[in-house]
Amino acid sequence: MLKIGPYECQSRLFLGTGKFSSLKVQAEAVEASGTDVLTFALRRVNLDHPEEPGFLERLNRKRFRFLPNTAGAKTAEEAVRLARLARASGLSDMVKVEVIGDEETLLPDPVGTLKATRQLVEEGFIVLPYTSDDPILARRLEEAGAHAVMPGASPIGSGQGILNPLNLKLIIRRAKVPVIVDAGIGSPADAARAMELGADGILLNTAVSGARDPVRMARAMKLAVEAGRLGYEAGRIPKKETASASSPAEGMVT
Amino acid sequence: MLKIGPYECQSRLFLGTGKFSSLKVQAEAVEASGTDVLTFALRRVNLDHPEEPGFLERLNRKRFRFLPNTAGAKTAEEAVRLARLARASGLSDMVKVEVIGDEETLLPDPVGTLKATRQLVEEGFIVLPYTSDDPILARRLEEAGAHAVMPGASPIGSGQGILNPLNLKLIIRRAKVPVIVDAGIGSPADAARAMELGADGILLNTAVSGARDPVRMARAMKLAVEAGRLGYEAGRIPKKETASASSPAEGMVT
Amino acid sequence: MLKIGPYECQSRLFLGTGKFSSLKVQAEAVEASGTDVLTFALRRVNLDHPEEPGFLERLNRKRFRFLPNTAGAKTAEEAVRLARLARASGLSDMVKVEVIGDEETLLPDPVGTLKATRQLVEEGFIVLPYTSDDPILARRLEEAGAHAVMPGASPIGSGQGILNPLNLKLIIRRAKVPVIVDAGIGSPADAARAMELGADGILLNTAVSGARDPVRMARAMKLAVEAGRLGYEAGRIPKKETASASSPAEGMVT
Amino acid sequence: MLKIGPYECQSRLFLGTGKFSSLKVQAEAVEASGTDVLTFALRRVNLDHPEEPGFLERLNRKRFRFLPNTAGAKTAEEAVRLARLARASGLSDMVKVEVIGDEETLLPDPVGTLKATRQLVEEGFIVLPYTSDDPILARRLEEAGAHAVMPGASPIGSGQGILNPLNLKLIIRRAKVPVIVDAGIGSPADAARAMELGADGILLNTAVSGARDPVRMARAMKLAVEAGRLGYEAGRIPKKETASASSPAEGMVT
Repeated sequence: MLKIGPYECQSRLFLGTGKFSSLKVQAEAVEASGTDVLTFALRRVNLDHPEEPGFLERLNRKRFRFLPNTAGAKTAEEAVRLARLARASGLSDMVKVEVIGDEETLLPDPVGTLKATRQLVEEGFIVLPYTSDDPILARRLEEAGAHAVMPGASPIGSGQGILNPLNLKLIIRRAKVPVIVDAGIGSPADAARAMELGADGILLNTAVSGARDPVRMARAMKLAVEAGRLGYEAGRIPKKETASASSPAEGMVT
Repeated sequence: MLKIGPYECQSRLFLGTGKFSSLKVQAEAVEASGTDVLTFALRRVNLDHPEEPGFLERLNRKRFRFLPNTAGAKTAEEAVRLARLARASGLSDMVKVEVIGDEETLLPDPVGTLKATRQLVEEGFIVLPYTSDDPILARRLEEAGAHAVMPGASPIGSGQGILNPLNLKLIIRRAKVPVIVDAGIGSPADAARAMELGADGILLNTAVSGARDPVRMARAMKLAVEAGRLGYEAGRIPKKETASASSPAEGMVT
Repeated sequence: MLKIGPYECQSRLFLGTGKFSSLKVQAEAVEASGTDVLTFALRRVNLDHPEEPGFLERLNRKRFRFLPNTAGAKTAEEAVRLARLARASGLSDMVKVEVIGDEETLLPDPVGTLKATRQLVEEGFIVLPYTSDDPILARRLEEAGAHAVMPGASPIGSGQGILNPLNLKLIIRRAKVPVIVDAGIGSPADAARAMELGADGILLNTAVSGARDPVRMARAMKLAVEAGRLGYEAGRIPKKETASASSPAEGMVT
Repeated sequence: MLKIGPYECQSRLFLGTGKFSSLKVQAEAVEASGTDVLTFALRRVNLDHPEEPGFLERLNRKRFRFLPNTAGAKTAEEAVRLARLARASGLSDMVKVEVIGDEETLLPDPVGTLKATRQLVEEGFIVLPYTSDDPILARRLEEAGAHAVMPGASPIGSGQGILNPLNLKLIIRRAKVPVIVDAGIGSPADAARAMELGADGILLNTAVSGARDPVRMARAMKLAVEAGRLGYEAGRIPKKETASASSPAEGMVT
């Protein structure tokens, strides 16, 4: 079972709730995904009245854990402020730190992310920073007290899948906290691949909400995450040039 | 549901039965895979006494369909002879044609494969040729009457996954018979990827039998094939450079 | 030096002459490429009067060797007929066999290509068949007497580069005749990569004629082919996960 | 021509001078590479007597520009100290900032690199930080006054080539200072690819010094960098599924 800080998650698939065509489709996709951790942008929530109109009131809060994110924040300070509001409103003390470095790519700002992580850890939050796939930065975030690290596979919403599996692998191998691959997953195969690399979980949103049939894709992702995890645990065969080759494939293909 | 000639398959995963460490592990992996089509080399079967020692007698033949292959054949003639023996012994009139061009790579011989396919179709077999990923050859095999085509993802037993997704996609898009991706699948993500490309099914063996935990990997593959198929049906998001990009990703990365 | 049948080539870059915006640009690109082997479609040549209007009369035939191709042929018979006309007209006894299996992709037909190669070899031509990257087919062509084999990197004119480096490597490693990578090269890096795999030469056309600045691209390709060949001869460093890793990179990135 | 701060470089290939088998091979490789910028680790130089034993005294300092690096530094402070010593000894006021986050991978520390860059810019150095391929960090370094940014293609000495071309492209497209791709280049094709992405230059060392024939590889790299640059300037053809396709290739291959 996946444990992040004090919290246990049954599913290794975290689902974002944005950009669905309707609350009905959203609810069905959430159900089909099997997730028990939902993420959403704090700026989309009326934090004065977090039970007010929107999707949250429709959710059984006993059943789902909330992982609000600080999307839209461009500085550590903005991210910290959003997180505090979320906790004060009773929404969650677990937060996904997003400090965006760039409006075009929505890639995370390394310095701001690290700063916000430090501050929120100090204030007692359960902190999951969204970060690039830089292995050293991931380590610095862990040293800063992050309860998990969330490296991106490729830019948010790009559907490009895992651009740099080596970096993810380096992060995973050396992290002592859970690694949740976040952003860029486009298809079930991408999700399975991330889990096969040893990721502890996946967070995705657009790949489901933007699919032609979001509910079916949600179910596909659920199965893909399970498949990838089982594949990781089962220990895959090595890649070789041919079955009869005694050495691995790499020497061959340049 | 997948239909090959007159036969219907519940599962889109065909499992090879070779190279398991024991009949017990084999049986459990077969079970975990959810397959209903089993493949095996005819040269491993005592065709005079097909019910004799080996794994076949252990199988509930009502439950599984057999897809014997002509592995070991180096000419069309050898492949045809093996297929005839299989049918004469009551084993199966469905056959996977394997005419190997090369002992080292076990890659299929295009000319011999086409010739054997023609001959066996003429003799009334249900014929599934194992072929390279050459789209023109796949078409020629279909024109010769093949009931499905089985392009390789990479060399048998190599675990390298899909080396040329474009060729598979071209084959899939233009085939009127089922396309079963055969050979080279190494991990659940590979299986999911093949299904996302639109393959009708997958045949694999080493990826399961050679895994550290074959039974768990068999289950992983079952889920991956389902995930990939659902993902294909659900219609994935396009790849873009970034979420805000209006054009696809390709122009970007050269 | 590259030797094909009785002919020696100074340059390892063969250039197609089609689709240039003007004869002037074509001539400058040919010059910049440093090639001494030019290829063109026989159907574009007036074989009754091969010296007539067109680009050929502009060329110093002492300086360039001609490698006419049978583009447009859909059967072995058509290809053979075109080759015979080319020789009868005094154009060349060296021919690139192209038997196209498909109008959409222009991928080669394996059976027709093999048949035409056999026939033309028997008739004393110097035969270079354009083929898929199927290693077994490449071997069959060599056994049929081909003086070189010309596997495609990706579909003609696609600019996708090398889709399956393993197949090219297998062909190169086992061929006793020169291997000229033909079709699909899009950029200098693609050309260098093919040469690093050990190819004896490259044939390209669209990558130069379709570039924004064809003459500059021709020069780029000349340098890239030289760079790739030198890199092949110089013996590249192995890929490793990190500099300190004792094992190759492959085990790492799945 | 490439200009970094006040300095002009004739060649776009910067060569590291470490790990050659002999000073003779080193000198010949430097010559063959055509470089006019040499890089080396300051900790390898006797900074009290920079003219003393080693390779520097063999070099015509009129001909080569020196780009000493702070390899070995684990903190910004160490890097700054090394740079100051280099300048004080008259070696160079141009410095490649390396603050290593990790002994195993030698990947750069983002926070330390940024800090050292800020400090050295303030002290009037010409500063070229070695950084990850994180586009936001590259921008932060530029904002801090870096005169060029040097993103890694893959880990130092790994020879893995460009792991994430999208990130490099994003950095290149948005930088107003030169982008020199540093670390991980393994072969001429890798170098050409980086230049085709629009990099202003390449820094490499192991790919040459570790080759079987370093001098020949140095020449290969020289040609590859020229080829890649020309290819970039010449404007390559788009990637398409097939020549007849009207849309780019990406939609096709998932």
